[in-house]
Amino acid sequence: MKVVIIGVGLIGGSFARDLRKVFPGAQITGADHNETHLKRAVELGLIDRPAEDLDLREADVVLLSIPVNGLLKQLSEVLDAIGEETLVMDAGSTKAEICRKVAGHERRRNFLACHPIAGTEFTGPEAAISGLFEGKTNIICEVEQTAFRIQERALELFGKMGMRIRYMNPEAHDRHIAYVSHLSHISSFMLGKTVIEKERNERDIFDLAGSGFESTVRLAKSSPAMWTPIFEQNRKNVLETLDEYIGNLQGFRQLLDSGDYKGVFREMEETNRIGEILNGIPTQKN
Amino acid sequence: MKVVIIGVGLIGGSFARDLRKVFPGAQITGADHNETHLKRAVELGLIDRPAEDLDLREADVVLLSIPVNGLLKQLSEVLDAIGEETLVMDAGSTKAEICRKVAGHERRRNFLACHPIAGTEFTGPEAAISGLFEGKTNIICEVEQTAFRIQERALELFGKMGMRIRYMNPEAHDRHIAYVSHLSHISSFMLGKTVIEKERNERDIFDLAGSGFESTVRLAKSSPAMWTPIFEQNRKNVLETLDEYIGNLQGFRQLLDSGDYKGVFREMEETNRIGEILNGIPTQKN
Repeated sequence: MKVVIIGVGLIGGSFARDLRKVFPGAQITGADHNETHLKRAVELGLIDRPAEDLDLREADVVLLSIPVNGLLKQLSEVLDAIGEETLVMDAGSTKAEICRKVAGHERRRNFLACHPIAGTEFTGPEAAISGLFEGKTNIICEVEQTAFRIQERALELFGKMGMRIRYMNPEAHDRHIAYVSHLSHISSFMLGKTVIEKERNERDIFDLAGSGFESTVRLAKSSPAMWTPIFEQNRKNVLETLDEYIGNLQGFRQLLDSGDYKGVFREMEETNRIGEILNGIPTQKN
Repeated sequence: MKVVIIGVGLIGGSFARDLRKVFPGAQITGADHNETHLKRAVELGLIDRPAEDLDLREADVVLLSIPVNGLLKQLSEVLDAIGEETLVMDAGSTKAEICRKVAGHERRRNFLACHPIAGTEFTGPEAAISGLFEGKTNIICEVEQTAFRIQERALELFGKMGMRIRYMNPEAHDRHIAYVSHLSHISSFMLGKTVIEKERNERDIFDLAGSGFESTVRLAKSSPAMWTPIFEQNRKNVLETLDEYIGNLQGFRQLLDSGDYKGVFREMEETNRIGEILNGIPTQKN
């Protein structure tokens, strides 16, 4: 199997690691606009060598694992360059604009719009880990727009990697993911900002912060280059989730300000069941 | 050594586990308003038996590890009942009101006001784990109000358990901890609430949520019975942190709404250094 990975960072690199396990003979080439990352990906054995133009035409699988603004630009070019039987898939955190962009492309049926719900707050080839996708959900959008044989190849791959598949339309994906992923990142970034602004003496953060704070601001380590275009493409949904979140915080503030501690208690009690809901989430194994 | 633990939950129980490691001969008795927890604490070997009135008088160490509203009520009674050389310490997440409450008590010099920055989102004796306090910071307030020999006994204990000590006044403690702990809990609870409200079909949360969301809402599993009195006692500081947090969220919303993506990028980039700050935080080992 010949595979081209465009963007050899956390996602592309982890995909390469798992691919080598399930298809030991795979030839993996890669591309990255960051020359250092590309070189490092070869050194780490994630890819065999940098990809050349011909590799796209001969590829069985092309994975685009780059920020969603790059995806919007490069996906059409990649579809222009592939062979008739090449599967092209992405791993972008937004789906609607990307699906619209290639809706009329003559190779649309070679493309499978994917969002594997997997990752960490780290970036680059060094962050690539084995087993990142195992037990994780992969959301596939507009599956009916992809040729059946191409779908089949993708599903075989995902199955061997241990991923669970869920089908959605791109608009529903973007709406739901705004809540369970994009909003979490903003809440975490703004929590980090609030504390950094207040605690000018950083030793105080260092000494007083516990694992609870660390867990809540973990996502504030995420890459702005990756997240800015996600918020841009999913702006409308993200604004809606933010308004609801801010409204809930103001509501809690009001209860506390007026001394309604029964109300404060109830707000927390009603949210406790998030624990049961979360028990179903596959956890990171590494 | 004779030790009485009042409140045999996560903190009291974990303290008992570590105490047995560093003082294998210690006699540990316990009290809890929850009879099931008390029984379970004996079964788990956290305590040797339920404490009796006489145990307080003969105790070398009494730990009050109960919610901060209970602490306000019981601390004076405990100080009334102890022997002349007994060390009494607490583990409350607020310090100012508790210190004020016992300021004039004739046994004030037997009390050491403590806040070990350690815990998980779970509660009860089953949640007690070994090594919870190792490498963690223990904030001691108003140390000058505690008799020297009593301090010494506490420091020996904390030292053997591997805790780092930091001294603060109660007001500074409450102000700082509002940022690095109390606000995180509210941000997490309200994030959980926002998502639960929106995602009526919980299967959607289950399927789409990744480890990022899980990490950000982890604290929303925390006990309302423990947290309501914390917010009540630290109301003024918590309101201030909430206002700043809501203000930052509104600022981010404004940047996104007006399409200022450079601004969105900058907000995240400036907060990324939380990663370096957090690298200093001792992580949970279990």
